[in-house]
Amino acid sequence: MLRTPKKLTDFTCSALDEVRHNAPLVQCITNSVVVNFTANALLALGASAAMVDIPDEAGPFATVASGLLVNLGTPTAESRQAMLEAAAAANDAQTPWVLDPVAIGSLPVRTPLGYTLRDLRPSVVRGNASEIIALMGAGAGGRGVDASDGMDAAEPVARALAEKTGGIVAVSGPVDVITDGQDLFRIANGDALLTKVTGGGCALGAVMAAFASVDDDKLATTVAAVAVYTVAAEIAAVRSAGPGSFAVNFLDALAAVDPDDIRRRAAIS
Amino acid sequence: MLRTPKKLTDFTCSALDEVRHNAPLVQCITNSVVVNFTANALLALGASAAMVDIPDEAGPFATVASGLLVNLGTPTAESRQAMLEAAAAANDAQTPWVLDPVAIGSLPVRTPLGYTLRDLRPSVVRGNASEIIALMGAGAGGRGVDASDGMDAAEPVARALAEKTGGIVAVSGPVDVITDGQDLFRIANGDALLTKVTGGGCALGAVMAAFASVDDDKLATTVAAVAVYTVAAEIAAVRSAGPGSFAVNFLDALAAVDPDDIRRRAAIS
Amino acid sequence: MLRTPKKLTDFTCSALDEVRHNAPLVQCITNSVVVNFTANALLALGASAAMVDIPDEAGPFATVASGLLVNLGTPTAESRQAMLEAAAAANDAQTPWVLDPVAIGSLPVRTPLGYTLRDLRPSVVRGNASEIIALMGAGAGGRGVDASDGMDAAEPVARALAEKTGGIVAVSGPVDVITDGQDLFRIANGDALLTKVTGGGCALGAVMAAFASVDDDKLATTVAAVAVYTVAAEIAAVRSAGPGSFAVNFLDALAAVDPDDIRRRAAIS
Repeated sequence: MLRTPKKLTDFTCSALDEVRHNAPLVQCITNSVVVNFTANALLALGASAAMVDIPDEAGPFATVASGLLVNLGTPTAESRQAMLEAAAAANDAQTPWVLDPVAIGSLPVRTPLGYTLRDLRPSVVRGNASEIIALMGAGAGGRGVDASDGMDAAEPVARALAEKTGGIVAVSGPVDVITDGQDLFRIANGDALLTKVTGGGCALGAVMAAFASVDDDKLATTVAAVAVYTVAAEIAAVRSAGPGSFAVNFLDALAAVDPDDIRRRAAIS
Repeated sequence: MLRTPKKLTDFTCSALDEVRHNAPLVQCITNSVVVNFTANALLALGASAAMVDIPDEAGPFATVASGLLVNLGTPTAESRQAMLEAAAAANDAQTPWVLDPVAIGSLPVRTPLGYTLRDLRPSVVRGNASEIIALMGAGAGGRGVDASDGMDAAEPVARALAEKTGGIVAVSGPVDVITDGQDLFRIANGDALLTKVTGGGCALGAVMAAFASVDDDKLATTVAAVAVYTVAAEIAAVRSAGPGSFAVNFLDALAAVDPDDIRRRAAIS
Repeated sequence: MLRTPKKLTDFTCSALDEVRHNAPLVQCITNSVVVNFTANALLALGASAAMVDIPDEAGPFATVASGLLVNLGTPTAESRQAMLEAAAAANDAQTPWVLDPVAIGSLPVRTPLGYTLRDLRPSVVRGNASEIIALMGAGAGGRGVDASDGMDAAEPVARALAEKTGGIVAVSGPVDVITDGQDLFRIANGDALLTKVTGGGCALGAVMAAFASVDDDKLATTVAAVAVYTVAAEIAAVRSAGPGSFAVNFLDALAAVDPDDIRRRAAIS
């Protein structure tokens, strides 16, 4: 079991090589705001991107994709149907899939959709503290939360949510938290500029789906995805004059980041 | 009353500080072409962006957002419904909102929608000369105009439109014009590169919504939004080799522009 | 007839001038992933972009646009209807139009739509080898192909498809192939970084539509579009540290590329 920071760092390096070698095809059903940045992040990483997000195509494609991202950012009626179809097909075909429950809590369309998707047991859930708490909320009788929830509050909820889904839960924040319900790792990389680029979090969900395709140990692949992504962000931030140049440098850094960078910088604990 | 260039310049500086301090949450129902750039412009400025643009969510969200942008660029059936729902809810909740009647005139779906939204009395209307003339056109019996209408023709129409809506009308062009029907200010900042980046105008509408959230004097907040936006464009243009680098530098400049830049450059008359 | 590399290079230079002088208005019905990059590529080139992609507007607009792009990347129900409406209207009005049959082959919604659009006889078809083979496939009784089809297999199919549509077929790859069914030219420009930016191919379809508006010889205008586009990519690649900076530099290069660059670099054979 890859359950020490050292082993996880080694795994991250080999998983990065494997993603670049395999070029996994990641299907994304994601929001209109970040769809371009998400595809570019996958391509920069060395993966392939396919935004097959309409009913009747999303399901069949999920059976052949290497991984799937379902992101609730701008859930039109067609994309909602595509999400349910794709998640079910991914489960049938054992395609790993990531759920990003963007802004659920009180919004009346996406929140019940988030619960339905949660109950389809995604391989990985990724969100900020508020979204993770909201996604668990229904079971606890809650009604959603505002964005001010802290990581301290989120950690036990993340564990409980991971137990509930049988998958991995990743909470994004200044320090990222990843848990399978039992073990819990923290990654203290990244840069605040990542929050000044729209899709900074959403694209990470797609990267998690890419990494999830290379190994059955989804806790390890999710740690690897976060480590690679946030180390690239650190490298990019140093060169950047602001959020515009950061977004550009980040894509360059995702394409260039190598095992040496990971070993030197990854702060997994 | 902030009705002198000097006072408006001072106001612009304090309003910029306030936007950065408050981080107003701007809801955008906008077109698929510019949605990413618009969100990034808001984030760079220091505001927050939420593209809540589906029916049943757009209305409730408009009651809690700090400001709302309704942009007619790619008006799908769902987004049309969301626009009407959000505008009505914004009015009920006194959330300031901006209407950008992109390409109205002869296009048969968006033009009547533009009139309906106009009659809901947006806090601010932003468009180019042709769009402003077209938006006023129905009442005057007109049938829309081509894009060659000049600013001279637009000024009296902008005044009349502002009287009709009871709000502010901003006409974008080489020199921007902002009026409440009585007073009229011109801002001679910006750069032609802004017209070479898609969303250069559309994102300004979102920035107007952000500024509209910090003060009741919407003429002043709209002048401030245009001044900050176009001064940032000037700063970015100096560093840019073309439209690609300009878009990047513009986001950096929006994040960095400060009161000294505004005082030194703003050309309000 | 412009049927020698030398004459086609000269034509490319004059067509580029003409695009910049005329600023053709290119209507794009394209996918959500690349819509922003496509608009920015058209603007950088000196053309105008209008993403009029909803039913009831797409048709009327196609009669006044200089050119039309129909791209099947994320074909929502509304955009599918808009595509058919616009293609028919373009034919009626003799507006040149480009079909980009993204990812057709086995996907069950877009594949029959691609055949229907093919049978409307687009002025130009652009795709990778697999898409061109798949688009021809129905007539040949085929069922679509995976992305591994090579250029060798695609060339005779491209000729046959051009005969079938009565238009031009362009196959994108390391060496681009353009044929009217009789003559066939190859262009050996470009850079692999173009495949690492989403929309690298899709935006070329829009550029083909812009060039198609300046001359009746669509084989020549398509060669010109590919030459300008791929020469700009070469120029951009030299300055780029990765796919993020390449996308930025590419837009700058599209705006700056001039006849000298074309004469020096274009590798048409």
